[in-house]
Parts: sequence; structure tokens; C-alpha cells
Amino acid sequence: MGAMSERKTGIRRRGRPVATADGELRERLLNAATELFAEQGIAATPMSQIAAHVGVTSAMIHYYFKTRERLLDVIVEERLGQFIATVSEGIDGADDDPFGMVQDLVTRIVGTVEQMPWLPSLWIKEIASDGGQLRERLIERLPLNVHKRFGACVAAGQKRGEVNPGLHPYLLFVSIMGLTMFPLAVSKIWKQFPTLKALGNRGVAEHATALLLHGMTVSGAEKKTRKSV
Amino acid sequence: MGAMSERKTGIRRRGRPVATADGELRERLLNAATELFAEQGIAATPMSQIAAHVGVTSAMIHYYFKTRERLLDVIVEERLGQFIATVSEGIDGADDDPFGMVQDLVTRIVGTVEQMPWLPSLWIKEIASDGGQLRERLIERLPLNVHKRFGACVAAGQKRGEVNPGLHPYLLFVSIMGLTMFPLAVSKIWKQFPTLKALGNRGVAEHATALLLHGMTVSGAEKKTRKSV
Repeated sequence: MGAMSERKTGIRRRGRPVATADGELRERLLNAATELFAEQGIAATPMSQIAAHVGVTSAMIHYYFKTRERLLDVIVEERLGQFIATVSEGIDGADDDPFGMVQDLVTRIVGTVEQMPWLPSLWIKEIASDGGQLRERLIERLPLNVHKRFGACVAAGQKRGEVNPGLHPYLLFVSIMGLTMFPLAVSKIWKQFPTLKALGNRGVAEHATALLLHGMTVSGAEKKTRKSV
Repeated sequence: MGAMSERKTGIRRRGRPVATADGELRERLLNAATELFAEQGIAATPMSQIAAHVGVTSAMIHYYFKTRERLLDVIVEERLGQFIATVSEGIDGADDDPFGMVQDLVTRIVGTVEQMPWLPSLWIKEIASDGGQLRERLIERLPLNVHKRFGACVAAGQKRGEVNPGLHPYLLFVSIMGLTMFPLAVSKIWKQFPTLKALGNRGVAEHATALLLHGMTVSGAEKKTRKSV
């Protein structure tokens, strides 16, 4: 707000952005922060390095985000929040079709990673790892109701005899992450294997979809048993 | 060797173990190191804390492991090496049966975690995460041939028309890790969901097995198409 009126009046004050539109510089600082955090870890990345990456002084970071803790809050709210929103939308729009929902979620997760290539690295280091600096912040924001709807959709499919009864309906969401976000996060390891060197994100998504959708089906024999019971 | 002859002669020298059998103290130091590294991260754990955890002085760690880097080498060789050996055994004993191999691998991985409960945390933080302090050490020791045999066994099953042709045979190993080690590493997150709070390692293994074995099968329709081709 202050910066906007400042721009209108054309008065320049020390430590405030001038050359770049406010929103754009703020986004660029967030981009630099997420990339550097993903690459080096949050603890190993000083605020001054984020500013230098964008070509401004540390004062800019303090202007937009006040403190380091607040910067982490903003990353969780805006960037990880975008991921959570995308996944939640997929679950809310599932329309009682567990197969369509799971397929859609794989597409949404891998699609979000295309837009935010730093996400898997940041996620495995700062959320999935014990002591990760974003874990508690993310847990606070976990949409418990959305996860409940996901599991309820799968469980209803099991009751109708359409979904593999051997699956844990609520753990299946963790499996989707384990077959998408996880392999994308550790691609530097499996790309050491010559047989996997050339595999891209799309290949990972196709494999995950094939395994999940097939793993969710009920075999002919099981269908018969269910009906005769 | 030196310490053994020392015990035999009964001569005590400064900085060497006396009260405890050599092998036992070394094992206890390794146990403490893996537990503390898993909990806090390697970078955040001083050698003195590992020694204090076992009730000895830092000199003991230096006696057994010389340097911090050498201690990390030993953890990878002996502890992670045990995990790699268990997995490799499972693949080498697969006997051309991809389904039996995958089921056995799930059992072996979850069984190893029962013996080494610190493994998933240490693995996700120090191997799976970029910049993890054990990653390079582990990559050097990855048994490329074993992974090749794993994929070849799955690919042969696909050629025989027994295994889902939509799967990437070599990526399937990463999927097994994503459905076992990964959920065990992030259990503190999903246990926030009331529907998953009570789920144990065995439940994770059963779900993984159900998804993998079912996901690997070929449906009746696909079998027919394959045969007619």
C-alpha cells in the first residue's frame, strides 16, 4: 500500500523498490527464495543471498517480508498453498469417481511441479524430513476435511465392489505422493541408473497412473466373490 | 586389533575402552550416531553428543572412527550396507518371478526398518534430500547390476504377458521405495490425520503389497489382446 502511493507520488524513499513494479519484485524475491531454499536448504541460505540473487539489497527482503520467519510463512501460504489448493480442487471435483480422482491428482501434482520445479526438492528437505523448517507450518494448514473426502470416495468405491478391497483408502493419498512427488524429488539418484537416465516427469506420471489405476481395480474373480456374498 | 591385544594383556592405555567389550562399545556408538543423526540431522549433531549419549568421552569416537567423515563412511558401509545387501539378496533370489520378488522386497524393506527404526528418517534427510551428507557415499555404492536384474525380471514378465505393460520396469523399484520407505519416513505427517493415526508399519506393508501386486497384474481384456496379437 505504502509503496503504491509512493509510486503514484513519485517520491523515492530509501530501501523501497522503484525501478521494478512492486508485485513483480516481490514475486522475484519469492522465486529466488524457493529456488535457493530447495537447492541449499533453508538453514544454509542467508537472506542477503536471496536479495543478491535478484540484484537488490537485503533491505528489500525486509521491506516485503519483515523477518525470515515471515518469509517462510509467505512461502507456505502462497507457494505451497497453491499446491494444496490444486490438490484440494481435484478431490472436491471428484464426483464420486475414485479412479478419475486419482488420475486427476497425478496430473495435478506433476503439472504443479512443471510450474514449480523447485517444489519436490524443497518438499523432501523441509517438509518430509524430520526437523524440516516448513513441516510444522504445513501441518497447521493440512486440510483434514479434504483428506477425509479423498478417503471416503475411495472407501465408497470399495463398498460398491469397484475398488480393490486390499487398499487402505486413506493411505492411498500418501501412495500418490510416494509415486509422484517422491520420485521427482529423488530423480538425481535414480538417474544414476542407465536404464532411467532419460526418463522425464511425464514418464514418471504415466508409470504412477498405470500402477495406481490398475492397483485400484478389482479382478474378475474378486468381483464374482463379492457379488455371491 | 590393538585394543584386543590390549585387553588380553590387561594393560590400560589412555583413551581406549576397557570396561566394555570393544565390539559392543563400537556398536553402541554406531547406534547412538544413527539415532541422533536421524533425529537431528548430521550437520546438527556434534561428535561429543554421540559420545555423551553412550556415556563415554569424545576420545572413544576418535579411537574407533578416527574422523567424522570416516564415521559417516562406516555408517554407510555397515548400516546402509546391510539394507542394500538385504534388498540385493531379495532381487538375486527372485527366480524369474516378478510378483514374488516385489512382495519379498516389501517384506524385506519393512523388516529392515523394524530392526533399524531410525532408517527412514536418516534416509529421507541425508540421502533423499539434495545436499544430504550420505547421498554421494550411497550413490557410489549403488549396485547397478542388481537394479538391472530387478528391471530385467519385470520386463521379462511383461514380455511373457504376465505383467502390466503400462509400468516402467526399472522405475518400479523406485515405486517400491515410494510405497514403503517414504510413507514410513513421513509417518509423523500422516498420523495427523485421524483416519491414519493408528496405522502401523504392518498396515503400510499390506497396503503397499496390495497396490503393487494388483497394479502389476494384467487384466483379462489385456491378456486376450496380447494373445491375439
